[in-house]
Amino acid sequence: MTHPKTLAVIRVFSSTDQKVLEKHAKIIEKLYGIPTRTYCIPNQPEGIANEEIAKDCVDRIVEQCLRAEKDGADAVLVSCAIDPGVEAARKVCRIPVFGAGSCAAAMALTMGSRVGVLSLIAGDVPSVPRSILGDRMVAAVGIDGVKDTRDLLTDWGRAGAKKCVEELAKKVDVIMFSCTGFSTMGIAHWFPDLNVPIIDAIEAGGAAVDRYFAVSSVQGPLDL
Amino acid sequence: MTHPKTLAVIRVFSSTDQKVLEKHAKIIEKLYGIPTRTYCIPNQPEGIANEEIAKDCVDRIVEQCLRAEKDGADAVLVSCAIDPGVEAARKVCRIPVFGAGSCAAAMALTMGSRVGVLSLIAGDVPSVPRSILGDRMVAAVGIDGVKDTRDLLTDWGRAGAKKCVEELAKKVDVIMFSCTGFSTMGIAHWFPDLNVPIIDAIEAGGAAVDRYFAVSSVQGPLDL
Repeated sequence: MTHPKTLAVIRVFSSTDQKVLEKHAKIIEKLYGIPTRTYCIPNQPEGIANEEIAKDCVDRIVEQCLRAEKDGADAVLVSCAIDPGVEAARKVCRIPVFGAGSCAAAMALTMGSRVGVLSLIAGDVPSVPRSILGDRMVAAVGIDGVKDTRDLLTDWGRAGAKKCVEELAKKVDVIMFSCTGFSTMGIAHWFPDLNVPIIDAIEAGGAAVDRYFAVSSVQGPLDL
Repeated sequence: MTHPKTLAVIRVFSSTDQKVLEKHAKIIEKLYGIPTRTYCIPNQPEGIANEEIAKDCVDRIVEQCLRAEKDGADAVLVSCAIDPGVEAARKVCRIPVFGAGSCAAAMALTMGSRVGVLSLIAGDVPSVPRSILGDRMVAAVGIDGVKDTRDLLTDWGRAGAKKCVEELAKKVDVIMFSCTGFSTMGIAHWFPDLNVPIIDAIEAGGAAVDRYFAVSSVQGPLDL
């Protein structure tokens, strides 16, 4: 039997609630059957709300990536659409480092060329996914009144998110979520009849890792 | 039991040799366990060597996409890095249409920001993957003396391809193949010890389809 490859998911907020921390990893386990281990950075109970805050977290994220590598992980996913620390971690890790933001933008481009981005706050698209999308990002909307992910737990927050997605679906050919708070809430699966595909950032990260694991497991020529 | 989702692979060359035609589909079946059906366009025994030729094939590719949809396929992958007919087919198909070129470029961006592209002929990077990569494409090389995919079957063609990949690995952080002829040859798996990941266009297309199938199979909230 071969060693099953393991993904380390790095949460960019601090919590002692293992169930909450592991939520993103469980999405990936469920969808792709990839074994995971979850890590979280210390001293960041509020998570990462913007790119300014992200800068202060880079060192702590890189530390967790290195720790995961030392623990035997075969790849790392930084679970934030800003891709905080991803570039820095790639310089010091021998295993691949994935970022939810770059994966989300990349997966959107596999399905269409007119991408609509849903953020918590309109236009608040992190620079990494934004630069990958380039002028293929034709709309960037946010939810009226929402200030942080906790607002998505309210009835009005959920209704606002639903409205945004339905409006976007009328003008784009693929919708992308630029915040992993949407992954925690599972919003990608609220729309069974939407005529446009939705790219969730954590689900996209898992798919990129899945490709890497599938391909790197092949020893020598593919036996077809 | 749920209906297993099926991918239609559209080959852009004409042949009656089913084994040769099905080679790309088999790569995807093997790596991701996705059931496939292979179609090929008529009157194109030489395949598609460049974007000029691609234009003449658009209508025939769209026809095959529609035929696949009618046959019950759940998605289509056009098996050529030029993405010929992909945009046109998306306008008339209700199922998602993937292109090997856009998927390859997208997957490269999940793994790095300095992409080296290997084509048969140096710099011969189709416009769709080229525009997705943008200035992240930092090198574009080709194989000395190679004129078409048949040259890759020769000893000198194989040696030249090997040299190109090894040279690219010294200056980029991810290597992408911009021709599906490399997929047929299985070149992505000739380098067990390369320090840089290789993105094969067909393997990338399969991964994008796999994400879509995994995610679209979820009915209602993800049961975590």
